[in-house]
Amino acid sequence: MTELAWRHGVSFTEALADVASRTNTLLDRLMPVPPGLEARVVEAMRYAALGPGKRLRPFLVLASAHLFSVSERSALQVAAAIELVHSYSLVHDDLPAMDNSDLRRGRPTCHKAFDEATAVLAGDGLLTLAFQVLAEADTHGDPMVRCELVHSLAQAAGAGGMVGGQMIDLIAEDRPLDIGAITRLQRLKTGALIAFSCEAGAILGKAPMELRLALRGYAHELGLAFQIADDLLDVEGDAGETGKPVGQDAAAGKATFVSILGVERARDQAELLVRQAVAHLELFEERADLLRQAARFVVDRRA
Amino acid sequence: MTELAWRHGVSFTEALADVASRTNTLLDRLMPVPPGLEARVVEAMRYAALGPGKRLRPFLVLASAHLFSVSERSALQVAAAIELVHSYSLVHDDLPAMDNSDLRRGRPTCHKAFDEATAVLAGDGLLTLAFQVLAEADTHGDPMVRCELVHSLAQAAGAGGMVGGQMIDLIAEDRPLDIGAITRLQRLKTGALIAFSCEAGAILGKAPMELRLALRGYAHELGLAFQIADDLLDVEGDAGETGKPVGQDAAAGKATFVSILGVERARDQAELLVRQAVAHLELFEERADLLRQAARFVVDRRA
Repeated sequence: MTELAWRHGVSFTEALADVASRTNTLLDRLMPVPPGLEARVVEAMRYAALGPGKRLRPFLVLASAHLFSVSERSALQVAAAIELVHSYSLVHDDLPAMDNSDLRRGRPTCHKAFDEATAVLAGDGLLTLAFQVLAEADTHGDPMVRCELVHSLAQAAGAGGMVGGQMIDLIAEDRPLDIGAITRLQRLKTGALIAFSCEAGAILGKAPMELRLALRGYAHELGLAFQIADDLLDVEGDAGETGKPVGQDAAAGKATFVSILGVERARDQAELLVRQAVAHLELFEERADLLRQAARFVVDRRA
Repeated sequence: MTELAWRHGVSFTEALADVASRTNTLLDRLMPVPPGLEARVVEAMRYAALGPGKRLRPFLVLASAHLFSVSERSALQVAAAIELVHSYSLVHDDLPAMDNSDLRRGRPTCHKAFDEATAVLAGDGLLTLAFQVLAEADTHGDPMVRCELVHSLAQAAGAGGMVGGQMIDLIAEDRPLDIGAITRLQRLKTGALIAFSCEAGAILGKAPMELRLALRGYAHELGLAFQIADDLLDVEGDAGETGKPVGQDAAAGKATFVSILGVERARDQAELLVRQAVAHLELFEERADLLRQAARFVVDRRA
């Protein structure tokens, strides 16, 4: 098996584009359109998972796997599984009963391009496929590692993670949350899956707990920085670049890091988080340079 | 570990009630209500999974595991995982955008008792938890077996199984299906999960393929018989006993086994399927008596 490798000195932008392309190739292969009438739900799954997107989570998987000499095939399987879960969460979050969004990454959302029932099923199908992919022998030669991946992804994605965070987010529409509650909401809603993306490399590489915890620490700060940057983009972003309407949070009356801290302090907070994230990577020396650049990217991005 | 055992000569009804009670105890333990605001989604998950229900799928897991001297703990973990998947599918199928059902097993459906967004999330949480449970060490000492369970459940539940079947069912509202297409729809929509329930015992017991295929054959006939009985109940059932309105399929203009074959021929077909199902069990001799009774029950039930 080929070890995961990037050319020495590869830039973050090049590596991100490379990961996106390799992840898309695998996702395409994992979702062949069947001949029967159920093709419609697979078309909707493909629409949601293969559309434009940064593929940041797959990048985090590959960059963390890179620290532990994991094979490229293993890392890509996990990257694809996480992107499937991320895609499912967007499809369900966009539904009329949830955030009721018509646009995502500049395109009609899944329930607009298909219909609501198909979008519910497409999300269900994507989530289910993620676990199927992790359980495949291709993901890792040691079935214990595959079980740990399944278990950890389920914890990150379920009611104690992403699903729980989305629940709190919905409740927050009617009840103002303080900064502590918003931090917890975001740790669950986006932080848990980002943390799993970074820890996955350590799980695949059977890394010692100390290194796994360092990656978790990095991911924790990164996830919050990512969310603050998202909130800033909702206030200051350009709809043409972000691919979705701006001002959605304010219109929904949602408390965000920016509505509570203000733009200036929110930006300072994001900068602080990036420095803290990078500090967790010291143990990995220059092998973690791409993860350091990723932290920078997360707060500097325009979309 | 305790081997799964029923008192000699236990009746199907007693065994079914016993499985239901033990499955409910485990489901209750698997879904503790957390202290945070995300408690709401866990309450909805509990409402959906712990409500009234026959627990037929858990029964099939335990009765098939019984054939291979599997430990009770292993079998119950898988039974709970399958019931979680079954519950999620009912929550999502009942949504306004899908079958738009207000009543399920005599109670308001999940989105009526909570709200639509919470019901979407509760379904997502239940599905995710199912895979977490299968990946736990409690499920089987051999991680390879756990991976096989995760993989097989995902195949049965995903776009090539239950989700695909539900997709075809939605398409069938606008397009009349013939008997072949309806048979395929039902094989995917309800048959795949029933088949996995029966095969799970063989997977847990590392049974030879011949015996696993016998159980698959049994489950295949049983699943269709179950669906025809369901269609008959929709025409002839008593809403007070079934806990849901009768005549829903006809009102929705849906083609069913009964609308195509008529009541008499549908009933004959169900009887034939039960005999065929039972024929697959010959190899297991009297150890499979409960599965034989289950086949009888499936077509004789009044709810």
